[in-house]
Amino acid sequence: MSKFNVAVVGATGAVGREIVKILEERKFPIKDLVLLASERSAGETIFFKKKEFTVQEPNKNSFENINIALFSAGSTVSRKFAPIAVKTGAIVIDNSSAFRMDSHVPLIVPEVNPQSIMNHSGIIANPNCSTIQMVIALKPILDEVGINRIIVSTYQSVSGTGKSAIDELTEQSSQILNNKKTTRKVYPHQIAFNILPHIDVFEDNGYTKEEMKLIHETKKILGNNKIKITATAARVPVFYGHSESVYIETNNHISINKLKKIYLKTKGIKLVDDIENNKYPIAIMSEIYDDVMVGRLRKDLTEPNGISMWIVANNLRKGAALNAVQIAELLI
Amino acid sequence: MSKFNVAVVGATGAVGREIVKILEERKFPIKDLVLLASERSAGETIFFKKKEFTVQEPNKNSFENINIALFSAGSTVSRKFAPIAVKTGAIVIDNSSAFRMDSHVPLIVPEVNPQSIMNHSGIIANPNCSTIQMVIALKPILDEVGINRIIVSTYQSVSGTGKSAIDELTEQSSQILNNKKTTRKVYPHQIAFNILPHIDVFEDNGYTKEEMKLIHETKKILGNNKIKITATAARVPVFYGHSESVYIETNNHISINKLKKIYLKTKGIKLVDDIENNKYPIAIMSEIYDDVMVGRLRKDLTEPNGISMWIVANNLRKGAALNAVQIAELLI
Repeated sequence: MSKFNVAVVGATGAVGREIVKILEERKFPIKDLVLLASERSAGETIFFKKKEFTVQEPNKNSFENINIALFSAGSTVSRKFAPIAVKTGAIVIDNSSAFRMDSHVPLIVPEVNPQSIMNHSGIIANPNCSTIQMVIALKPILDEVGINRIIVSTYQSVSGTGKSAIDELTEQSSQILNNKKTTRKVYPHQIAFNILPHIDVFEDNGYTKEEMKLIHETKKILGNNKIKITATAARVPVFYGHSESVYIETNNHISINKLKKIYLKTKGIKLVDDIENNKYPIAIMSEIYDDVMVGRLRKDLTEPNGISMWIVANNLRKGAALNAVQIAELLI
Repeated sequence: MSKFNVAVVGATGAVGREIVKILEERKFPIKDLVLLASERSAGETIFFKKKEFTVQEPNKNSFENINIALFSAGSTVSRKFAPIAVKTGAIVIDNSSAFRMDSHVPLIVPEVNPQSIMNHSGIIANPNCSTIQMVIALKPILDEVGINRIIVSTYQSVSGTGKSAIDELTEQSSQILNNKKTTRKVYPHQIAFNILPHIDVFEDNGYTKEEMKLIHETKKILGNNKIKITATAARVPVFYGHSESVYIETNNHISINKLKKIYLKTKGIKLVDDIENNKYPIAIMSEIYDDVMVGRLRKDLTEPNGISMWIVANNLRKGAALNAVQIAELLI
């Protein structure tokens, strides 16, 4: 079996650290590992297979001999270094939103559209966290009966913003519990014990970029431009795990029992739906399970083809790092 | 101006205490005030207009000479004592779900259906907190262009469950921040830094009672059985203030600008919708404002008559105590 030279760009971030962990967990066939991050983090060390690696600042020579470069350092870094990496011969798997909607860049969820990976020209994009878990849960329904309408409201954890936001939730929570004044750096308003209907920047149409990502990326991954999607994205005071309240209308009828049977045999999905015993997906379960969890499945009371459900996944792992590594596995 | 003898049943609970505070704030014309609560809380004292009142356990003679009895001690207490209070000549304003769907009991939101109060036969029901804020926000749209579809996902604070749940969120948050094992008494799962898609008990159709309340009560208050409503209710780690992500489809077209103009002049609604300056309703604002806050107003990108919005209100005040006192004001 061949081994590969792998670079991780943004290795010290919340997602970057998960990527390194997952490469080890899943025994990805690595020859050389190169860890890159901004000047601020360069010099830090990270353990991989009990060996210490020093993080370096990327430059135009960083990608020489690299076969696969996993980027997770934001759009600006991806725009600057991904083309350099590709020119040097690496294949880039990019976790930022920089190239996701480019027509020549495949946007891949291995469980959903693995075939699309063939069309890459050096860069493969990893979708947004809130998109990944939703398309994994909806794909089996789409295949079985078609979907024409999606209305989703999200409950997204702060780790999606990064380590600074995890710190901010921790600090503010502690300040409030100790009757102190709260301080904030990351979010425009207090996030502890609060809900913010605001993720990423606002666009001219009144939607946030996060909501538009959910709409555009879902259509691209599912290869279906006709699905009508409405999205509201909210940040909640949770450390890990995104939850989604999803309502759909299918083209043809499917019973909840049939749907449960399909989910039980779908790889990558964990059906957690036993309401009599108070079992349904909850955010903290995503710290244990890598699968996308689906539950609260129920028929709509008015629309014959309406179904409501609750979808939860680990936004750092399946929503980012794990999906990126799975794309790399698909590649090799 | 006449003055009234008022009883508050459940006076030591989270909503009961707010009722006493609001009666004072709004200078409700009270002659005698009688505070009642369960055996466990009897003997406690509560201040009203700087005077100390001792809480008593209710018995069949507690309502003699009472004109208005405000109940907020759960369905069991309401079922037992409301009929006794009515028999003694009091008018009962009941905050529990015991009588809400009875055809001879009006379900009142003073801003929405004040006229329905005329039909009472002794008991007037106060709607569920999550229903009140939604119908206040939707009524002006219903009047202007009609509504045929509502899809709502809630983000409900723990104070809706009561004081014990506020304590549980406080304790668990502190335990987690101090790396201790969490303990729980109130909710079936950890609520701190987590989301539970589960409020009240599950019904046979897979929906929770909270979700069914939102559906049934909204139809009753709006006097419209044709509106198709889909609801998902989730508990979030927030102390005060319920948030709601609401998508509607209207019968006729209305522009967002027109809608904003209508909201600006609607009593009981505070329009908070200036996304360029990161202004939108957030849960903690409900500790300051009594009005129902509406924001994130935007046209759907696919449905010509679709509108999304974000609705926030104080669940203890407008969602319970304040609405109950406003019903009492309407009565007198």
